[in-house]
Amino acid sequence: MPKTVQKTNAGRFFEDYSIGQVIHHAVPRTVGTGERAMYHALYPARHALYSSDAFAQSCGLSESPLDDLVAFHVVFGKTVPDVSLNARANLGYAEGKWLKPIWSGDTLRARSEVIGLKQNSNGQTGVVWVRSRGLNQRDETVLEYVRWVMVKKRDPASDAPETVVPDLANVLDPADLVVPEGLDFTRYDNTLAGEPHRLGDYSVGETIDHVDGVTIEEAEHMMATRLWQNTSKTHFDGTMREDGSRLIYGGHVISMARTLSFNGLANAQMIVGLNAGSHANPCFSGDTVRAWSEVLDTAATTAPGVGAIRLRLVATKGGAPFTLKDDSGKYLPHVLLDLDYWALMPV
Amino acid sequence: MPKTVQKTNAGRFFEDYSIGQVIHHAVPRTVGTGERAMYHALYPARHALYSSDAFAQSCGLSESPLDDLVAFHVVFGKTVPDVSLNARANLGYAEGKWLKPIWSGDTLRARSEVIGLKQNSNGQTGVVWVRSRGLNQRDETVLEYVRWVMVKKRDPASDAPETVVPDLANVLDPADLVVPEGLDFTRYDNTLAGEPHRLGDYSVGETIDHVDGVTIEEAEHMMATRLWQNTSKTHFDGTMREDGSRLIYGGHVISMARTLSFNGLANAQMIVGLNAGSHANPCFSGDTVRAWSEVLDTAATTAPGVGAIRLRLVATKGGAPFTLKDDSGKYLPHVLLDLDYWALMPV
Amino acid sequence: MPKTVQKTNAGRFFEDYSIGQVIHHAVPRTVGTGERAMYHALYPARHALYSSDAFAQSCGLSESPLDDLVAFHVVFGKTVPDVSLNARANLGYAEGKWLKPIWSGDTLRARSEVIGLKQNSNGQTGVVWVRSRGLNQRDETVLEYVRWVMVKKRDPASDAPETVVPDLANVLDPADLVVPEGLDFTRYDNTLAGEPHRLGDYSVGETIDHVDGVTIEEAEHMMATRLWQNTSKTHFDGTMREDGSRLIYGGHVISMARTLSFNGLANAQMIVGLNAGSHANPCFSGDTVRAWSEVLDTAATTAPGVGAIRLRLVATKGGAPFTLKDDSGKYLPHVLLDLDYWALMPV
Repeated sequence: MPKTVQKTNAGRFFEDYSIGQVIHHAVPRTVGTGERAMYHALYPARHALYSSDAFAQSCGLSESPLDDLVAFHVVFGKTVPDVSLNARANLGYAEGKWLKPIWSGDTLRARSEVIGLKQNSNGQTGVVWVRSRGLNQRDETVLEYVRWVMVKKRDPASDAPETVVPDLANVLDPADLVVPEGLDFTRYDNTLAGEPHRLGDYSVGETIDHVDGVTIEEAEHMMATRLWQNTSKTHFDGTMREDGSRLIYGGHVISMARTLSFNGLANAQMIVGLNAGSHANPCFSGDTVRAWSEVLDTAATTAPGVGAIRLRLVATKGGAPFTLKDDSGKYLPHVLLDLDYWALMPV
Repeated sequence: MPKTVQKTNAGRFFEDYSIGQVIHHAVPRTVGTGERAMYHALYPARHALYSSDAFAQSCGLSESPLDDLVAFHVVFGKTVPDVSLNARANLGYAEGKWLKPIWSGDTLRARSEVIGLKQNSNGQTGVVWVRSRGLNQRDETVLEYVRWVMVKKRDPASDAPETVVPDLANVLDPADLVVPEGLDFTRYDNTLAGEPHRLGDYSVGETIDHVDGVTIEEAEHMMATRLWQNTSKTHFDGTMREDGSRLIYGGHVISMARTLSFNGLANAQMIVGLNAGSHANPCFSGDTVRAWSEVLDTAATTAPGVGAIRLRLVATKGGAPFTLKDDSGKYLPHVLLDLDYWALMPV
Repeated sequence: MPKTVQKTNAGRFFEDYSIGQVIHHAVPRTVGTGERAMYHALYPARHALYSSDAFAQSCGLSESPLDDLVAFHVVFGKTVPDVSLNARANLGYAEGKWLKPIWSGDTLRARSEVIGLKQNSNGQTGVVWVRSRGLNQRDETVLEYVRWVMVKKRDPASDAPETVVPDLANVLDPADLVVPEGLDFTRYDNTLAGEPHRLGDYSVGETIDHVDGVTIEEAEHMMATRLWQNTSKTHFDGTMREDGSRLIYGGHVISMARTLSFNGLANAQMIVGLNAGSHANPCFSGDTVRAWSEVLDTAATTAPGVGAIRLRLVATKGGAPFTLKDDSGKYLPHVLLDLDYWALMPV
């Protein structure tokens, strides 16, 4: 074989995707109590169900699962070499569903199906929609979500594919949320969980300033992003920007905001649905991340004592809480993240 | 429910404490080999009993327990939202006893009893004494200690409570130290442990310069402090100080100094008693932490081959070793920590 | 015992070594899934055999072992207090063999035999060759390698020992490589592993630019180096250099380069032999590490579907890929590491 064969992965370009294409992502990953400890070191994670085997058992589970966002990050990380290595922007998320908890010792792998394609009018880039699934070692789907990214074309002169824009739900119907088997909040202990506020104590439209802030360091976001085997150069290589700083993985901001939201939403225990999400502005080392939430909806589930709460979670790097967009509908410059999700909460 | 209900924890003020009050702290935490690995990454931990299952087994234990200070940090962290969120200063420790080792998979929770109250003459603050206990999933107390903090009053005009100052032992009686069940140092291997010096080789008054130094980084102290679910803003939020630096959790300095003390005290294996402790001066990122020790006492125990050594452990950020206080009895500015503890050592 | 007895380890000087001397290194270490998670957080590790129990099982192993370099770092770390505390330079490696995988829960200890001594002509220093072995809790040798270091003399006036320079193989004979028991690559899954290139796709002389770069942070290299209980002051104490930066442990660069080499060598799964290695230039925080490889040889093994590939792995902090030495044979200033190793790869 000649020397000139390219052995490294240059990533896919817009032309490399086709509707219905299924991509099996590489490098399955076994996760366990080591990843759990790292998650607690990297984020101010305090939700009791993910902190304590004893608490999880009192809620009907066999042990404490790994944080829902661990599943999200691992699956996301696996998709990066195939989906977003040449992405210009991570445009959105929809129809995210957590279907099974991740237990210590589980091995996750991921695959994605291309469900939408639309070349941009500039001819330089296109939008690719994929539905990504995480599977465990028993071939059970543990998580699925749609994300769409803007990807460079290899050759601006190449033909545009037929435009297919998938029809995605704006919000998951609460009836479609999957409650983990056995989950039972009838003996839920507010004191151990950290707050007295249950589903009935939150009203639609209510806003909560989560008060605390965390100043971000390069070492931390890189360790987090590496832990999920996310290979995007931009998070690790300080030579890509004049100032040596690295663009922070959007998922780092998601986990930071979600864990900061413990203070005011300690009982929003498990994330079960991701309705939408925007990485409104980039985050860099030195930024101090804060979070606020807005209650968008509440719903019942069929599991004993378990309700669902739909929340907007906003991460900021300054600015007043509860400010989001300017008059033209553009995110304010201090807004990092606008996430819309469903969580399970005791009624 | 109206929007204005405060969902976040504002912490307790001096008026919120009363003698005999028992506070059940939130968020139980399961710890394991992940936390052990993190401890070894964050501190130069080398005591063989906490490093090797095989070594621990040769000392009569079933496996290597988690470092004693892991128990301390986890319990301390749990008390923060209830005890020290509005604290102006962490004034002291006393009567700390380690009662059971922490094994991988144990779940710790914590509760505190208010045992002392004294309003300060300025009327702005008061001192609160609590006896905190860590319990495992079998409801066994694994650790207890008294600490006292200066807490802000919500309203300076409110009445002062009756002053109750608890009568605390200056030093634990060695007869009250609890040796872990089964511990046996009769086959203790000096070579594997790292040093030949046993209890008889140390004399009261002897001082040891531990020689090594570690320069502290923001990412490391924040990861450590988060790992213990300590929520004090001041350790994470760089906007609270002009220079962006974060006040380092005093416990980070304790663990750093204790692990640095391996070099000269490799056989002071297990901490079993905390007699007293002062965080003499604040520590910040960029400081290079060093440590020295002074032998304060030695004692026998009833366990085979096991003796006890009482040590002063001093952490510094510069200055000559063995210097502690100025002529007026005030800690010198380079002194970070002055800790008085009992450890178990082979005779 | 008088106060003046030195309790701390001052390290060995050149005069303290003699041919045939066996040094039993201190502090055995149990490693497990916590260390595995840390390894994934500290390095962009993606080789599937070390990432996934399921993948390892499909290759005939009972579970995913710990990364080969974890064994190397742990053994290396144990030798530091006895071998390189007073070393001026880490001169080379040879005859490194991985003999058994490290499984979660294994306890490693180390011993070294002095196999060479040569005083330098300046009379100030000498070269010490040691063959170090890592042993597990079943007294099986899991790893062995020779390294040689330049060590200070305690007293320049002391007599030189008889010069003994060991006769070391430049390259391990592939017949001497040990393939882990049960390893079978006949059902090897390229897609899960991440790349299609198998042994037959690589040709001797072929060079691969691994493309990605990682900018190094103080917190990360210190956490890594501490995790392996490496006690060399120079990696931790920022007061030893004017600019406060710490000399980075050479092994950190080895792991960084090896894991970066996934991109182009994803199927070079297990390191089984270390032929040679030079830390060509020092690495500091802020450097962006990149890597390139050259195929030096290929060989068959007797295990089903398993071949061996001999690789040069070069880590750099800038400069053009594939540049190594100047006309005088000196490493170029941007070269950090030049490593020569054997890895197992599916045929």
